[in-house]
Amino acid sequence: MIVRDVNKLKDTDRSVSDKKWTSVRMLLADDAMGFSFHITYIQAGSEHTFHYKNHFESVYCISGKGTIEDLATGETHQITPGVMYALDKHDKHTVRCEEELVLACCFNPPVTGKEVHREDGSYASPDEAA
Amino acid sequence: MIVRDVNKLKDTDRSVSDKKWTSVRMLLADDAMGFSFHITYIQAGSEHTFHYKNHFESVYCISGKGTIEDLATGETHQITPGVMYALDKHDKHTVRCEEELVLACCFNPPVTGKEVHREDGSYASPDEAA
Repeated sequence: MIVRDVNKLKDTDRSVSDKKWTSVRMLLADDAMGFSFHITYIQAGSEHTFHYKNHFESVYCISGKGTIEDLATGETHQITPGVMYALDKHDKHTVRCEEELVLACCFNPPVTGKEVHREDGSYASPDEAA
Repeated sequence: MIVRDVNKLKDTDRSVSDKKWTSVRMLLADDAMGFSFHITYIQAGSEHTFHYKNHFESVYCISGKGTIEDLATGETHQITPGVMYALDKHDKHTVRCEEELVLACCFNPPVTGKEVHREDGSYASPDEAA
């Protein structure tokens, strides 16, 4: 059994930050659960475009306020506590944050923790990363 | 892209209740994400023993207070907001709830939504269920 506390991981190498977001990796590929699980903090007033071509991701809003725009359809959805979005078509999307978002994110395949966002908003697939 | 709100699913057939717990299935096997994702509410004062022999499960505490006992080792861990436990060894365990727990749960393989807890605390594997 693995037991971890996000509050104790924020200042460790399990916490990864980039432009106006921080993601604490609660579970990574080497935990062998078949998915990874992250608590992600997005700064108020920021905007992020991602395109996980090689991953499925679900995102559940614990707190905060923002929107997600589906760039394929132009549709925009509100993100408020209790709302989940799932990128079942590897959807390219833009997240806009009004009040700091705290998000619970699952990735399949699991993230290794070594990925960086590429120019196209994606992470490398496990095969490419290997 | 799938977008769902837990607050709108509580009174639908995506909400499953048993003895002193309710689980809202935000993502199930037929969403084809490779995992399922549930928001689970456990009543204060209740105790639950589970043994997911056929699934990996991670559980992240959004709110509430309780404990998890690892029945293989006898060790007990506190569950408070920000704590995650992951049953990477299909660990048999008992959850005891002091204040209502709201938990974000991921299952691999994904739950179909038709499982029931068997006497041994497990869910059937996808093969058995088929």
